Order: sequence, then structure tokens, then C-alpha cells
Amino acid sequence: MSQLYASLFYQPEVTDIFSDRALLNYMIQVEVALAKTQAQVEVIPISAATIIEQVAKNALEAIDFDDLAVASGLAGNIAIPFVKQFTAIVKQQDQDASRYVHWGATSQDIIDTAMILQCRDALLLIEKQLQFAYRISIKQAQQYRNQVMIGRTWLQQALPITLGHKFARWAAAFKRDLDRLQAMKSRVLTAQLGGAVGSLASLGNQGSAVVQAFAAELNLTVPECTWHGERDRITEMAATLTIIVGNTGKMAKDWSLLMQTEIAEVYEPTAKGRGGSSTMPHKRNPVAAASVLAAANRIPALMASVYQSMVQEHERALGAWHAEWLAIPEIFQLCAGALERTTDVLENMQVNPDAMQRNLECTNGLIMAEAVMMALATKIGRLNAHQLVEQACQQAVNQQQHLKITLSEMDEVNVHLSPSELNEIFKPETYLGNIQLQIDAVLKAAQGDSA
Amino acid sequence: MSQLYASLFYQPEVTDIFSDRALLNYMIQVEVALAKTQAQVEVIPISAATIIEQVAKNALEAIDFDDLAVASGLAGNIAIPFVKQFTAIVKQQDQDASRYVHWGATSQDIIDTAMILQCRDALLLIEKQLQFAYRISIKQAQQYRNQVMIGRTWLQQALPITLGHKFARWAAAFKRDLDRLQAMKSRVLTAQLGGAVGSLASLGNQGSAVVQAFAAELNLTVPECTWHGERDRITEMAATLTIIVGNTGKMAKDWSLLMQTEIAEVYEPTAKGRGGSSTMPHKRNPVAAASVLAAANRIPALMASVYQSMVQEHERALGAWHAEWLAIPEIFQLCAGALERTTDVLENMQVNPDAMQRNLECTNGLIMAEAVMMALATKIGRLNAHQLVEQACQQAVNQQQHLKITLSEMDEVNVHLSPSELNEIFKPETYLGNIQLQIDAVLKAAQGDSA
Amino acid sequence: MSQLYASLFYQPEVTDIFSDRALLNYMIQVEVALAKTQAQVEVIPISAATIIEQVAKNALEAIDFDDLAVASGLAGNIAIPFVKQFTAIVKQQDQDASRYVHWGATSQDIIDTAMILQCRDALLLIEKQLQFAYRISIKQAQQYRNQVMIGRTWLQQALPITLGHKFARWAAAFKRDLDRLQAMKSRVLTAQLGGAVGSLASLGNQGSAVVQAFAAELNLTVPECTWHGERDRITEMAATLTIIVGNTGKMAKDWSLLMQTEIAEVYEPTAKGRGGSSTMPHKRNPVAAASVLAAANRIPALMASVYQSMVQEHERALGAWHAEWLAIPEIFQLCAGALERTTDVLENMQVNPDAMQRNLECTNGLIMAEAVMMALATKIGRLNAHQLVEQACQQAVNQQQHLKITLSEMDEVNVHLSPSELNEIFKPETYLGNIQLQIDAVLKAAQGDSA
Amino acid sequence: MSQLYASLFYQPEVTDIFSDRALLNYMIQVEVALAKTQAQVEVIPISAATIIEQVAKNALEAIDFDDLAVASGLAGNIAIPFVKQFTAIVKQQDQDASRYVHWGATSQDIIDTAMILQCRDALLLIEKQLQFAYRISIKQAQQYRNQVMIGRTWLQQALPITLGHKFARWAAAFKRDLDRLQAMKSRVLTAQLGGAVGSLASLGNQGSAVVQAFAAELNLTVPECTWHGERDRITEMAATLTIIVGNTGKMAKDWSLLMQTEIAEVYEPTAKGRGGSSTMPHKRNPVAAASVLAAANRIPALMASVYQSMVQEHERALGAWHAEWLAIPEIFQLCAGALERTTDVLENMQVNPDAMQRNLECTNGLIMAEAVMMALATKIGRLNAHQLVEQACQQAVNQQQHLKITLSEMDEVNVHLSPSELNEIFKPETYLGNIQLQIDAVLKAAQGDSA
Repeated sequence: MSQLYASLFYQPEVTDIFSDRALLNYMIQVEVALAKTQAQVEVIPISAATIIEQVAKNALEAIDFDDLAVASGLAGNIAIPFVKQFTAIVKQQDQDASRYVHWGATSQDIIDTAMILQCRDALLLIEKQLQFAYRISIKQAQQYRNQVMIGRTWLQQALPITLGHKFARWAAAFKRDLDRLQAMKSRVLTAQLGGAVGSLASLGNQGSAVVQAFAAELNLTVPECTWHGERDRITEMAATLTIIVGNTGKMAKDWSLLMQTEIAEVYEPTAKGRGGSSTMPHKRNPVAAASVLAAANRIPALMASVYQSMVQEHERALGAWHAEWLAIPEIFQLCAGALERTTDVLENMQVNPDAMQRNLECTNGLIMAEAVMMALATKIGRLNAHQLVEQACQQAVNQQQHLKITLSEMDEVNVHLSPSELNEIFKPETYLGNIQLQIDAVLKAAQGDSA
Repeated sequence: MSQLYASLFYQPEVTDIFSDRALLNYMIQVEVALAKTQAQVEVIPISAATIIEQVAKNALEAIDFDDLAVASGLAGNIAIPFVKQFTAIVKQQDQDASRYVHWGATSQDIIDTAMILQCRDALLLIEKQLQFAYRISIKQAQQYRNQVMIGRTWLQQALPITLGHKFARWAAAFKRDLDRLQAMKSRVLTAQLGGAVGSLASLGNQGSAVVQAFAAELNLTVPECTWHGERDRITEMAATLTIIVGNTGKMAKDWSLLMQTEIAEVYEPTAKGRGGSSTMPHKRNPVAAASVLAAANRIPALMASVYQSMVQEHERALGAWHAEWLAIPEIFQLCAGALERTTDVLENMQVNPDAMQRNLECTNGLIMAEAVMMALATKIGRLNAHQLVEQACQQAVNQQQHLKITLSEMDEVNVHLSPSELNEIFKPETYLGNIQLQIDAVLKAAQGDSA
Repeated sequence: MSQLYASLFYQPEVTDIFSDRALLNYMIQVEVALAKTQAQVEVIPISAATIIEQVAKNALEAIDFDDLAVASGLAGNIAIPFVKQFTAIVKQQDQDASRYVHWGATSQDIIDTAMILQCRDALLLIEKQLQFAYRISIKQAQQYRNQVMIGRTWLQQALPITLGHKFARWAAAFKRDLDRLQAMKSRVLTAQLGGAVGSLASLGNQGSAVVQAFAAELNLTVPECTWHGERDRITEMAATLTIIVGNTGKMAKDWSLLMQTEIAEVYEPTAKGRGGSSTMPHKRNPVAAASVLAAANRIPALMASVYQSMVQEHERALGAWHAEWLAIPEIFQLCAGALERTTDVLENMQVNPDAMQRNLECTNGLIMAEAVMMALATKIGRLNAHQLVEQACQQAVNQQQHLKITLSEMDEVNVHLSPSELNEIFKPETYLGNIQLQIDAVLKAAQGDSA
Repeated sequence: MSQLYASLFYQPEVTDIFSDRALLNYMIQVEVALAKTQAQVEVIPISAATIIEQVAKNALEAIDFDDLAVASGLAGNIAIPFVKQFTAIVKQQDQDASRYVHWGATSQDIIDTAMILQCRDALLLIEKQLQFAYRISIKQAQQYRNQVMIGRTWLQQALPITLGHKFARWAAAFKRDLDRLQAMKSRVLTAQLGGAVGSLASLGNQGSAVVQAFAAELNLTVPECTWHGERDRITEMAATLTIIVGNTGKMAKDWSLLMQTEIAEVYEPTAKGRGGSSTMPHKRNPVAAASVLAAANRIPALMASVYQSMVQEHERALGAWHAEWLAIPEIFQLCAGALERTTDVLENMQVNPDAMQRNLECTNGLIMAEAVMMALATKIGRLNAHQLVEQACQQAVNQQQHLKITLSEMDEVNVHLSPSELNEIFKPETYLGNIQLQIDAVLKAAQGDSA
């Protein structure tokens, strides 16, 4: 993708992890781990492993990236030319040691394990982002637990809620995202080492010992068997990130709608150069929302490609495996970008209580019709109450009058409800049901978490 | 979808769960649970709940499905006209009780909770299917652990494996699918009850008590807060099924490729009316594979739609929520269908050891070049061994001779390897690396499981 | 899909075309055409064709759908058991004739050609829908060409437009859709007849003659060669419908946003049972928009599946071809449903000029800042004008004053603009640029069309 | 995407068109065209336009890309900071002229028109690629029109075809791709110029004149109205490319299957560093196929994202428009890459007639059962012939004997078919139906084309 858009859609640290240089670095790390553990198990000479490890330290600088770019087009993957270059680099130091580079492994072992290492480092960052997003949402749920605003369904005003309830629901979503991340980690962060067809045949009877040591060296889960062709781990990781992005997309959708000029209840934080317009001074472009929504549009599509890629041929596939290399890094980068932008907005959101109050008023009290009906129901029965309020609503609409005034002019109402009672009923904050208990439940879960 | 294709793509019991009749039944069940628990918490009269429960028993027969079909087009969902009809049915019995039908709930509460109940029942069936698929794969991994066949990468012959190793890898995949199912169950099977905007405002201070009792009555998880607009639970369920289908797609791809006329190593089980052709008697159409592969093509796309649907507006969305109603049942049905067909093939696969042997021979021994090289390497060093074998391979190809013969005519080989040693090296079963240990690891994990 | 949702998402006539009964009918029609044209070319006896044609008239009633449903699961497609049943039905009449049923054809010939016939009939209906949608949009573009409203970008108020301009843009989109439909028709509506591998080998040297007569009989394009495995025609058709649905989705998005309680500029037409709520009398649920948006969410995903299906194996594929049977009918049905709902809303949209006026006012004149700046620029230069207006805007915002008043209190403004000039500048209808010329261009194109 | 994979998946010239530098260059070109045409229509001073045009020539070198990358993250698009930088560059030359940079336009005008210019240039290259692919396929259809091979359906051997027939079918597909490209060009290559809301309000009554001159200057179609929010043009372009890639994916699937070790009928051309393996000398990895199949997996998913993006808000959207910037360039690059690799393979494919012959023989004559039956049918009636051949097939399979021998030992056969007649019937080249006529039809269409 264009470097020009990286700052709009990505997050720098995660993008670094998936850079070409970093990928090569991870691949070197994998080759070193392979050599070291093979030396431990006495498959290759200790001296060879020592030299490979030593040479590896400065190998990245010696890699010819241009040659690599050309050669990978012919070889069909990046590992084949990389191993060739890396072997040559070792050979400059020690011809003997160079023979033991990549011993017994296949290209996919290196590419898959390197990708798992990338994913682990990126997941660590994303987990931190999620924890921060969770904390921020919890904080805002407390902060705004009494900030009444209209709840909307089907894009229509419905009944009042509080802004804190919104944040509490989002906090709960982030917590579920964190739970998912935890649940999958040890399953997905698994080493890959199988040789050409998954049997490590050239290692004789040392295959399993090498795999165990290799995984231990890299601090990855030992696979019970090779998984070159069974891609559910990779897919699960991407699927979990896709759900995270879906959750942020929902939030961005909400705040961008709440930023509409006519609604104006919240705003993205301002920053120099962000979203303003000198000839249209009233505009507050939801730039962060645009970025998050673009990610939430794109990632499901990328994910469809990843799922399709699970249908792989035999012991190692063609085409489907290749498709992963393009989709997985993009999903990680967009996810981290979406989280960064979302958390920034959640943390620094500008809240406009006046606009919330104004919007609560804009139906002339109709949003409180149900509240009145429930109050009257206890006095005159639900059916009568329903009819009475329905009639009052119609009249209020026709006369473009506030519903409270219409009701206050009806004898049947006055008999049962004093003016002050009626006033009380029309306060949105009195008709919030169990919202505070819901917020409490979410806050409690968060405390349990940190305990 | 066409009823005519149900037997090709679906599984009958799961399809029943998502039938129109069953859906209505689940919705009735939800309304009964609502009334009962509201009576418990004294929100509505016990007498009303009793009557609602009683009437519900035969309500399905009284539902006018044609009217429902028309009305849902106008109302925008199925719950609004259903509640209307159900209320009328109760009213015929008892006018008073009818007032308490659907008390305080919104359409989405009923539709979401009914869908969760459908999903729970369908997940139960799918879990059983998965357990069976796992058992079968384990059994076949044992059965064929020594059945040597060629391993293939990039659609090319590579090195030998055993059929049991393939099954072991698939068993491990099914186990991971089961683990994922377990990990998500309590998180996703959660009741939904929030009223118009999630606050249950019309229930006054009884909202949370009703939600708890309601979830308990339906044996669902109590939500910490309403999740009308946060759809990650629904999405997670579908995503987990999509991974299962991806795994079956990989298997179907393999067995359909192995069934190719020229390869002929395995066959789908035969059945009257399945896949034969009288004018093309040699054909064995992989009908089950076609069905599974079609599912593995379709579900990722449906899943993209579900992920996109997470971007919902405010407290309850329009459009995005609607899209779920079409995608989720289809995903469940295709998943169950794919599992049924896959397990049938895995269990009853016809294995053709002769063809496996023939294909192992078809490169004239070239697939064993690496094995020879490794054997020679211990005698003459790896570099020399490599050069020697490379030269032999070229010669064997040029002379269209078996590599073993070529090698046996080379003095440098004869010095180090006796004819019987050479014979031994060319047996594919001697070059299987750690495959047996991998199979053992998978079998052991399965035993631990059932223990 | 659930029958209960058909009225919400589909259009009845197109849904009929893709019903199981209709599909069988099309398949019978294809078999009759095959027999007739083979008799013409003297491949089969005229008497046989005559009997097949005669029997076909009542064959649908004789089809055992339950048996078909079971058998297609085993056979892997619907044509194999259909041909078996149809042959048996003919045999009851005339054993000899029954031998010539389906002569030389393969199942895919029948299924593909029947699908093309379904598509042709459905495209005809969709074309009529599009023409109607185009006419309605043109009419509304004229009707509302001067109805000023605020234009919005990034969900923010920007500058004024007219409602007629919106309709003109949509009319132009419908015209492009019609153009696309026309451009593809003869290419995609092509007969399929190739026998097992596309060679019609069993017809000896009569193959091409039969194909030509067959296509002519069905009024379809003659294929230059068999296209069992080259699915770009099917894909192109679906892709064109997906664009149509994307266009309607854009419209539905707009009108649902304009229906927001706080904006209230347009409404979907009312109907009994549609979108109202007795306890929330102010709500006007955009039910049609929900349906169209759900289609616009789902169809791109279905389309991804269709594109993926193009990657087919050899002469006739497995799995990928099967996936079409589920996706194509769904795309047609959702497209026709989306068009029906969109056109109904465009035709009967309730327009609220007062709300449009109110919203034009809600920024206190800030939306006209650019207009003022342009007016002053001619007097004092653009740079000075820009600085002056920017300063005025800031002041107006700080003092919560209308920008016109702020400006009218500034000497530098008064020097150059009289109060009446200032008043004129602040009328949104004076700042519409070339909108009327754009509408004219669209109207003119429509006249050229009908001429 | 990783630069390391560009040579594997992309095509250099098209990738250049979508590079950051090139994009900026196109944007400069758009601004110059805007200034020039506004000077023509006397909206801005001719002197300003002249200076802008002059400065533009070296502007690219003066652009600070790092600053641009940071600023676009804040601004939400690339045009805002670009215009700022470009204006500053002009200002260094002439302050007055700098005021007229980007006059009356909005960011989206520049980004959309620049993208259309990129697309035009890229389409030109892709059209050339397609024409070449078409020519090559035609040539190979002629070359191999008599090269008999087995046709395969459902991955099973069916009846014979010729390799030329395969090429003819693919040539026909490329021709349809070319037709589609032609049909859409003038519709999609349309200028965008509308200002903030599509009205070009700040240009007073000169808007339409400027749009016309602007489109003419850039040699683009004049839009009847602004299309900021109606994205069907962009979508149509991408959809057409996606079909092209689907067609190449089908071809890659075929040749990768035909390259299987056991089938070995064709090979990708060899090249140093491509697809070989020293320790597995029999392997011929289909590297080009892997690349094309990866593209055919990815692009449908990207396309789903583009279709979804059509649902845009109001006059100019947020998020959905942004998603285009990432998907469209990727689709173009992958399409050009897939075409390049496909054409290379089609042109230089290594064909192995011996293997084709061997595979035709591998069913022991069963693939010719239908041919025998048709021959006998003319002598003893189709029913008797069918029974006889069915019986012979069964016997041949049981005895593992060639069907011809089994038949030659049956008296009922000998009565009607002499040994030499039977020999003739078993020649696959005598049972090719109308394949030659189909090839002729495709060749003829190609001649008509070039005439």
C-alpha cells in the first residue's frame, strides 16, 4: 500500500513488525533457532551453529534486497532466495558451517514460523491496545454514567439512555475481545517445522526432538504434528482480529453519526490539520471514523480471502498459501490502526451535553410517551392508559405542542397526576430502567479482572 | 434455497432447527420464558403467565404463516407480526392475560434470543458431529499409520508419508475445532433482553431481576449488559463454524485430488445413485467433495457479510441486523452438511494401496534421491553426496532408467552401499522421519481427552 | 431462505422464476428444445421428438419432487435424477421415444441452459424495474429541481444543493445501469450444449448443427464454443446486478439518514403495518431502507463467492460450479427486491420542505460563509475576503450569533455590501452553482433516450 | 504490500502507475488542467494558469513526501496536504498565482480524477496484455488443434478433447474480456469536478463550462452530473478486471493440475531459479500458477469491499470512499500481474504429447466405451448396444484387461465390427465431435477482429 496513507490507516509499531526488513530479521532468527537446537540435539556440529548464530547478528545488513525481490518472483516464495543469500553470507565466514544452514527444513517452515513470530509480537501490541481501550471505556462509562442522551433505533429517536451505558457496552465488547485473544494464544502461536512433506525425514529419528527444542527456543507451542496444510491457526488469529475491528467499526459508526451537524452530541478530538475547513467553518470531519470505517469495510473482505485459503492441496499447497502473505499483514496493520484511532477518540471525545439535552427535546416530549403511559397504567389500567396517551400524542403532533402541555390540559390526566408529578415523569433521567445496574455489572467485571 | 438441493448441501436436523416452523416455536418459547420470569419477579400477574404458558402449547398450530409472511415485509421483521398474532391467540383465551404478552420487550429481544436458542441446539448437533469426526479420524490414523503413500507439495510428488499421518493431522484439526467450540460457548450463548433501547425502562427497577431470571429459565448466560448493537457474539459463532468448514474443505480438496483417474489412491464410498455414469464406466465422481467444496467456497463470503454487519448504528441498527437473518442460518446449515459429508467419506473411504504403490514408483525412484544422499553423506560428506546424487539423477532421467539402477552402476556408490543397503534405502517406508511419533502425539492427545 | 422473509427482501415474480417448480419447468423446456432441434437435424426420429414435446406439456405434474430432492443429494446435481424421471415419464407413453430423451447432452448442458433461461426472464423483469426507476427519478428530478436542502459531506453540513440534483444523480446512475444491461445481454444469454467434455462427440458430425438449431429454438445466442468451464458470462450477469444493488444501497443510505428524527427531511411512504410504534409515536422506521441495505450488504459477499467460482477445473468442475446454484438465484432475487423497494420510496417519498429549511438554518449562517467570501472577493480581493470572513465566523460562533448579523455589524462589510445584498447572499438558493445545468443535462439524456 | 513480493504478484509498469510518486504526478496534472481550463473560461487569470503550469513541471521534486504522509493521517486524505504543499510551491514563484491553485475544487475532485487517469493508463496496458493473450491463445489453438488429450470432468477422465480446443475456449474468454473493456471505457473514464457538494458553487455560472473544458483537456468523458457519491463507474472498472482475473485463474488451475507428477501433460516454461529443487529433482513447481491463483483468491475479496463501498452517505461519503484507495490499486496490480504470468505460460507452455497419450490409455480403453456403444447402436439398436458395452466394461475391469480386447472376444461384437473397425473406434482422435468446428469458429471470430 501507498506509504502516504500509512499514517491514516495503520499503527507505526505494528507496521514495522510487518516491514520487509523485519520479516527478514524474523527469518534469520528462525534459522538461528533451528541451527542452535539442531546442535543441542547433535544433528549438526555445535561449531556450525555457533558460527551461524554469530554471522546472523549482522546478516540483515548483508542481505541484498533487490536481488531478493527479483528472485522471489522466480522461486515463488521469499525463503528460497533468502536461504541462498544467508547461506552465502555464512559461507564467507565458514564454508563448513554454511552446509548446515536451513538443515532439514523447507521454505514453508521458515516462512510460517517467521510469520508466527511476527504475529506474536503484533498480538502483544494489540493486546496492550485492547487493554488500554478497555480501561478507557470503563473510565468513560463511570464518567458519563449519568449523562443522559437519547437512545436511537433504526436511526430514529427512541427512549433515553446515558452516554455511560454506551461506553459500558463497548467496554464489555473490548473485554470479550481480550478473552478471545487469551483463549487462542497458546493454540495459535505454534512453531512450524516439518521439512518437505512434514516428516522431517532427513533428520532421521531426531525430528521430534528438534521440533521440541526449536519451539522451546522460540518460546512457541510445540505442534503435535506438522500443520503446513491445515491453516486453521492462522485463520483463527485473523478472525479474532476481524471481530475486534468490527467492534471498533460499530463505535466509529456511532460517533460519526453523533457528530452530524444537526445532532452534534459528540466530536472527535481536535488537532491541528485535522478535519477542519476554512471555507466551511462549521464542518468537523470525522477523520478518525473514516479511517476506522474503511478498515471495517476492508478487513471482512480480506478475511473472506483467508478463509478461502484454508482449502489447501495435499501436504503443502500452491496459491492458497501465497494468498495469506498478502492478507495477514494487512489485517494486522489495519486492526492496530483502527484500535489506535478508536481509543484516541474514546479517550478524548468532546461531549456536548447541551446538544444532548436539545435533541432530547426535539420531539416535543413524544419520546416520553411510554413513560407517561406506564405511570398512568398503575392508576387507570394499561389499556386505558395506552388509549389516553395515544390520543394525547396525536393531538400534540397536530397542534405542534409539547406532549406535557397537551397532557396537562386533559382532565383525565390531571385527576391522577399533579403538575409536579407530570414534570418528573417527563425528565428523561427518570426513565432509564436498569442502565445503572448494567453499568455496575460491567465495572464490577473490570475490577474482578484487575484483581 | 431450493428444497431440491437441501440433501446435497445440508444436514436434515440442523436444517429443521432453522425452518420457519421451528423459528416460530423458539419465539413462542422465548415469550413464555419472558412471561414466567416476569411473574416470578412480580412484574406481571402469575395468572397471566400461567395462561400464556398454557396457550403457547398449541399456539404454533394457530399461527397464520401466510399472514405472517406478508406482514413481516411491512413491519421490517418477523417478531412484530408474530407478537400481534400470538397476543390475539392468547386474547381468545383470556383478554387480561393477553395484555402481558411480550411485556417490556422489543422485537429484537425475541428474535435475538430465539436465534441464540436455535444456535445452541444446532451447536449441540455440530459438536456431536465434530466429536464423531474426531473419533473417526483418530481411528483411521491408527488404521493407516503404516500405509505409505507419496506426499505432495505444490501438486508435485515430493517425499513419502503415510495415509495415517494425513488422518492424524486432520484429527488434530478437529480437536482444535472442538476446543474452539468449548471456549466460546458460555460467551456466546447469552440471553438478550433490553426493551427498546436496552434499558428495560418500562420494567422500572425490575429490569435486571427479570433478565437474570429470564436467562436462567432458558439456561443461557446472563448478559452483563444489553448487546443489541454489539454483535461480536453472533459473529464469533459464525466465525468458528467457518473455520470448521475450512478444515473440511481442505480434506475434500485432498480426497478429490486423490480420486483423480490417474492417481486413484482413494475413493469416496459408493452408493446406489451416487456419482457413477453408465457411458463413462471409469468415472467416480467425487460428489461429497463437490458439496463440501461448494460450502467452503460459499461460507467465507457469507462470513464477510456477517463481519460487515457488525458496523451497526446506535442502540439498534437497520439493515446490518437484517443481513444476519439470512447469513447465520445458511452458515449453520452448510457447516452441518459439510461435516456430515466429510465424516462419511473419512469413515468409509476406499483406500487403494496398489495405486499408492504405483504412484510411489512413477518417478523411477527420483523421490528417494534425498534419502540416498543422506545415506551417502555419512560416508563421503554431504557435499560429495549431493554432487554424486545430482549427477545420478540427471543420468537416470536422461536414460529413463530407475535411479536405483543408475546408482548401482556407479562405482563410488558401490564402494559405500551394498545392493541390499541400496534396496533398503529405496523403500519409501524407511524414509518417514518422525511421522510415527507425530501420530502417537495425536493419538495420545485423544486419549487424554476421553480420560 | 425462510419463506417468512420473502416479502421483506424479495420481489414475487423474480422469486417465482427461481422456484423449484419453475426450474424444473425450464429444464423440461430445454429437453424439448433439444429433442426438437435434433429431429430437425435428423439426429433423432421426428416421431420421438413429437412425443417428447407432447409428454412435456404435463410432465411437471408427474415429477416426484421428494424423490428428486433425495436423488440430487446422491447424484451431485438435479439434472441427473430429473432426466431419469423425465425419461420414465416419456417411457410410459412411448418406450422408443424415451431412448432419445437428453440425447448426447450432459447434465450441465441442461442446468446451464435452464439457468440462462431463468436469468433471461428475470433480467427482463429487472430491466423493466430499472426503466421505471429511471423514469421516476427523472420525474422527481424535475419536481424537486428547486427544492433547496443542505448538501452533506462526511456526514457534515457543507453547502446547499437541491433535492432534484440528488434525484438527477440517481437517474443518471439508473441510466448507466440500463446501458450496462443492454451491453451484456447478447453476450451472456448464450446456450450451453457440449455433452460430457464439450465436444458433443456422440452426435458425430452433427454437433454444431444441433447447437445452432438449439440456440435458435430457445432464442439464445449461439456459443462459438462450449463454455462449461469458462464462467465469465454467468459472473458478468451477477456483477452487473451487484452494481445495480450498490446504487440502490447508496440511495437507501441517504434516505434513511434524511429520515433521522433530528433531520426529518424525507420519509418513506407510510402504509398500514409499516414501521410505526404505538408506544414511540415519533418513530418512523425506514423499513424499506433496512431491506435494501441488507441486500447491499449481502450481495457483494455472494458476488465474491461467484468470482471465486470462476476458478474451475478442466472441462467441467466440481464444487465451484455447485456454488453458483446457490448464489445466482439469491443475487437475482435480492436485486429485484431492492429495486422494488427503492422505486417505491423514490416515487412516493414524503418530502418535508420545512425541515429542509430548518436544517439550512441550524448553523446560524455558517454554511453561507463561502458565498459571502466569494462576494467580498470581487470587491476586496480573495485573500482579504478570506481573512475577514474567517474572523467573522469565529466571532459568530463565539457569540452564538447568526453570521449575517455579525457581518452586518462589521464596517468593512457594510462598505461593500448593502443589507439587501447581504440578505441575498445568505439565501441558499443563490449559491447552487451549476446544479440546474446538471439537472438539464440528465433530463436531456433521458429525452434522447425515449425519442 | 511488501516490495519483496512485487515481482511475484505484480507487473512493473502497472505498479509504477500506482506508486506514490506517480499518484502525486497525476494530481499535479489534474491541478494544471484545472487552472488551464479555468483560465480559458476566464474564471482565473491566464497569467496565474501559466505560472501554475510552469511551476508544475518540477513540482514533484519539491514535494515533501514525509510531511505528506504525516499530514494525510490528520487530514483524512492526501489531497488536502498536497494542495497545501503545491500552493506553497507556486507561491514561492508567484504569490498571486498561488491563490488560484485548486480554485473551486474539492479534494475529492482531485483524487477521483487522478485515479481515473491512473486507471486509464493502467487499462491501456491491460488492454495490450489482453490483446497479446488473445493472439497467443489463438496461435496455440491452431498449433494444438489436433493434439489429442483426455478431457476431464469432476477431476475424472471423461472423453477425449484436443489441447487446441482448450486454447480456443480460452481465446474466446479473452475476446469477451476485450469486448467488456471496450464497452465500458467511455462510460467509466469520466472526469470528476464538483466542488464541495457537486455544485461548483464558487464558480458562479461558469461551473459547467469549466467541467467541459476540464474533461476535454484531460481527454476524459464529460460527466452529465457530479458523481462524488455514485461510485458505479469505479466499481464497474474493478468488476471487469475481476472477471479477467477469474478467467486467468481458471487457466492456472488447469495447467497446475496438468503439471501434477502423475499427469505431466504440460509444464510451465523453465527458467533459472524457478521452481526446481536439487534434493527433489522430479519436482516442477507451478510457480506462475501459484501467483495467478493467489490473485484469483484475493481479488474477489477486494471486490466485495469495493461493492460494499458503493453505499455512500449523501454528497460525499466517509469511510466507504477511503476504502477504495486501498482496494482499487491492488486490483489493478494483481490483474496485470496475473495476465503477465498467464500469457507467459500460455505462450511458452511445454507440451508433453507422450504423457497425453499415456493418460489416454490409463483406463484400459474404458474412456472409449461410449464411442463403441454409438458404433454398435447403428447396428443393433442403442439399448442392445448399451447393455453389451456395459457388460464388456464390467468384464474388462474385473479381468484388468483392455476393453478393446474384451470386446474383440465377444461374438456379438465380432459379427458387427471387424478388428480394424474396432481399432479405429478406439482411436481417441476419431471421437472428437465438433471440436474442430468450434476451433474454426473461434479462429474466424479472431480474423474478423483483426480485419
